[in-house]
Amino acid sequence: MSLLVVGTVAFDAIETPFGKTDKIVGGAASYIGLAASYFYKNIQLVSVVGDDFPNSFLDTLKSQGVKLDGLQIKQGEKSFFWAGKYHNDLNTRDTLDTQLNVLATFDPVVPDDYKEPDFLMLGNLMPLIQQKVLAQLTKRPKLIVLDTMNFWMDTSMDELLKTLSMIDVLTINDSEARQLSGEYSLVKAAQKILSMGPKVLVIKKGEHGALLFNKEEVFFAPALPLEEVYDPTGAGDSFAGGFIGYLAKTKDISFENMKRAIIFGSAMASFTVEKFGTERLIGLSQEDVEERVQEFVDLVQFDISLV
Amino acid sequence: MSLLVVGTVAFDAIETPFGKTDKIVGGAASYIGLAASYFYKNIQLVSVVGDDFPNSFLDTLKSQGVKLDGLQIKQGEKSFFWAGKYHNDLNTRDTLDTQLNVLATFDPVVPDDYKEPDFLMLGNLMPLIQQKVLAQLTKRPKLIVLDTMNFWMDTSMDELLKTLSMIDVLTINDSEARQLSGEYSLVKAAQKILSMGPKVLVIKKGEHGALLFNKEEVFFAPALPLEEVYDPTGAGDSFAGGFIGYLAKTKDISFENMKRAIIFGSAMASFTVEKFGTERLIGLSQEDVEERVQEFVDLVQFDISLV
Repeated sequence: MSLLVVGTVAFDAIETPFGKTDKIVGGAASYIGLAASYFYKNIQLVSVVGDDFPNSFLDTLKSQGVKLDGLQIKQGEKSFFWAGKYHNDLNTRDTLDTQLNVLATFDPVVPDDYKEPDFLMLGNLMPLIQQKVLAQLTKRPKLIVLDTMNFWMDTSMDELLKTLSMIDVLTINDSEARQLSGEYSLVKAAQKILSMGPKVLVIKKGEHGALLFNKEEVFFAPALPLEEVYDPTGAGDSFAGGFIGYLAKTKDISFENMKRAIIFGSAMASFTVEKFGTERLIGLSQEDVEERVQEFVDLVQFDISLV
Repeated sequence: MSLLVVGTVAFDAIETPFGKTDKIVGGAASYIGLAASYFYKNIQLVSVVGDDFPNSFLDTLKSQGVKLDGLQIKQGEKSFFWAGKYHNDLNTRDTLDTQLNVLATFDPVVPDDYKEPDFLMLGNLMPLIQQKVLAQLTKRPKLIVLDTMNFWMDTSMDELLKTLSMIDVLTINDSEARQLSGEYSLVKAAQKILSMGPKVLVIKKGEHGALLFNKEEVFFAPALPLEEVYDPTGAGDSFAGGFIGYLAKTKDISFENMKRAIIFGSAMASFTVEKFGTERLIGLSQEDVEERVQEFVDLVQFDISLV
């Protein structure tokens, strides 16, 4: 059993109403790997960094159970860098700087012993790179989850649609679901998107929770009302990591179990936003995670008997 | 046992992306009374209309169990009228016309046999009018629920704060909670507002559900993802009506029972938005309501055992 995670390992510089960071460690695969590691330990990473990336963070990933044989370290090159500034509501942001660096020429190489993962998490990346990973697998994974974003809908829609036809679960946010489907109603949007390939769709609504759809059913997971949200960066990736990590742990990909997985994903996202970057995802205890999940249970649990 | 409802009975003209109405029947107390009537029958109304108001709708209210002895009908005057246009997202709207008419001089008179209600729902109105109703009661109700809006925060904050000190449960939307408290975080906003008088606060988030707070606990009720929302007018009032109607029916004002009440309120709101005006709230069966509530149960129900 294994979980293959593909995505960026990178630097971010973040400004929110609560403060500002210098270059700190980020990237979709960093958040996904850390969040998943609280549920599942055989995590295999495929990604790329430059020689400027700190070994200390790579050691952290390794100590959390994330294997790095598929991480290319490009000598003489720089890691991907993104800088952004969140608006006061923390729901919208401006990109201040994007330096592709090693990502510009990233050609993913899946190590031989990573080629038959049971679970595959394709973090947000160019759809063509996501396809290149799929092409190298020698057996179809039990579950393929893909995260993407509006940027690829604007620039590579054909490639994105092709990728969508190859996966099982898609995670996108509400405005992306509207853009991808051309439907304002999320119920209608979901049905259109489910006809594009994915059997299951997760619509992330940030502080407003997340919706899980298949063709017949819908489930809603709330977000935890938090006193302070310091930095939303990585919330969606942590959500995806908790989601697939829980599924890999339980080896159960039924819709019922995905409901549970989405709660665990939401719990991991709720940790991430409490501090800048990946800080809050490092060194959590099993009790921390269980207590947080219990808060979700308490938040929505009610007892109505309809007779 | 009785439930006293105070609020407007009025005309609206509504434009949404899905269509446009002429003058139709609306008003906070109309929605509250209709929604509450599916749970509780001894509903007493205090309100005012002009002689232009249709008897047919008053008959509908009566047939649903809403008593009209406290409804003033002003001969030679016109009913309150509001016209508004919703934007494409249905979350924001512009007021196109407001004609106060009978509301300009409304002096609420609580009939003698309405003066000791067990439950009191003060629908959105000028805070001074809400106080005038409270002053006429000869016994404090078991529960006083108040709905208000940003307009009174802008124009009558002192009177509103005085009214808030006299009630038990406040229902407002998220932006109003932020305005009233000066806090962006809804968790912080809730704690500030709970120090102003109310023991319980309901924050309505429209399509994103509702939060229920007391000083120690928080509960979240989702909104039902709907294929089409035709007209959000009256959703908040229907929510309040279902909420207090269920509490009056069960005679239980514990936080646990308020969780159930908020689900029933959300169910009534989900009906209201499916058609223009009050149309969808007329002639529902008990089965319709129970089926709808079951959809809420299915939407958020999950089973996690943390051992």
